[in-house]
Amino acid sequence: MDATKINLVNNNFSDIMLNRHSYRKFKKDVKISNEEISEMLQEAISAPSACNLQSWHFVVCNTKESKDKAHSVLMPFNYPQAETASTIIFILGDTESHLKYRDVWNKAAEKGQITVEERDKVFKSFLPMYEHANRNFLEKDATLDGSMIAMQLLLIARAHGYEANPMSGYDYDRVVSTFGLDNDRYIPITSIAIGKPDEQYKESSRYSVKDVTDFM
Amino acid sequence: MDATKINLVNNNFSDIMLNRHSYRKFKKDVKISNEEISEMLQEAISAPSACNLQSWHFVVCNTKESKDKAHSVLMPFNYPQAETASTIIFILGDTESHLKYRDVWNKAAEKGQITVEERDKVFKSFLPMYEHANRNFLEKDATLDGSMIAMQLLLIARAHGYEANPMSGYDYDRVVSTFGLDNDRYIPITSIAIGKPDEQYKESSRYSVKDVTDFM
Repeated sequence: MDATKINLVNNNFSDIMLNRHSYRKFKKDVKISNEEISEMLQEAISAPSACNLQSWHFVVCNTKESKDKAHSVLMPFNYPQAETASTIIFILGDTESHLKYRDVWNKAAEKGQITVEERDKVFKSFLPMYEHANRNFLEKDATLDGSMIAMQLLLIARAHGYEANPMSGYDYDRVVSTFGLDNDRYIPITSIAIGKPDEQYKESSRYSVKDVTDFM
Repeated sequence: MDATKINLVNNNFSDIMLNRHSYRKFKKDVKISNEEISEMLQEAISAPSACNLQSWHFVVCNTKESKDKAHSVLMPFNYPQAETASTIIFILGDTESHLKYRDVWNKAAEKGQITVEERDKVFKSFLPMYEHANRNFLEKDATLDGSMIAMQLLLIARAHGYEANPMSGYDYDRVVSTFGLDNDRYIPITSIAIGKPDEQYKESSRYSVKDVTDFM
């Protein structure tokens, strides 16, 4: 993706990162097109992931019906966002990303884009680690990937002129099935409400760096 | 933190996010001062966290001795970074951030900065959820917080003119104790090598947005 070719409302990095705040109430009449959401996701997937497995999956709630579904799994303290956000994006972790990866390389070899030897070299490097991993390992890896891309999405929302709020308070066990997806494959990581704010943000303080850092 | 008052080598958001790549080999003679590392961490802690508990902790390996310690827990495929990076920052999750939070509010009430009633209102809102949570919940929450701040740190490194590489391949069980920290309290989340690159990056492709997104 060519960074010089995208049009952002705001391209000021320090403003985007340091003036980012969580908003919980948005202007109800603002719509964000599926096209613009795709653009934001396209920009966000520049995020890194373990072994480039990209263990993320997005569920975009951009209609009245799907936002109602989102509302049905969120905890009550997240209702204001669910009721006013232009869009809500659930970020799921894909615990089978290594199987998908194997498919992709198999297809590339079948099509002659790579040799069978090149494919096998890739297969031997790190796939066995994932194929023999326990559920905990796969969930942790997916959580890392999904959280990192969530952070990029929070920032990219601001670059597009919106504000956002990450919401991890939901009925964990019902999220994936509520959206008709495979409960064994996907896990909820977080969700992000995006829109134009309709409130002042509340300052939130941070512990000092000294307080949370050991220089060794 | 006033975004207009910090000096960044690069403040171009789209360049920082979209042209970020993982480098695994850095120029060995480049030093980054503890002061600049503190600045980067200060900027990164604008990241959000669940209930603002900030369940993160940083171990900065910025000396020969501490980088050797980092090397001793990393997996061999991360040796090139460990041997050449200017600094390596381990991001740990703090599974006792809710206890720390209680301390902070108790002290504020003792000092008269807030009333006892205000303190108790805070204590009743979400702390019980954490105090009754199982280890899994606390680890997942800390992993989310720590991964998000890791993403900010990867970006802020570029704003400071460096490149970076997130490394999650290490001997998980030995990381925390190797740095003399409390194994029951802290968990490893990821680590980040930062420096001036001494190689060309390798392009890494991504699945298309369509392939990983359900519009509902």
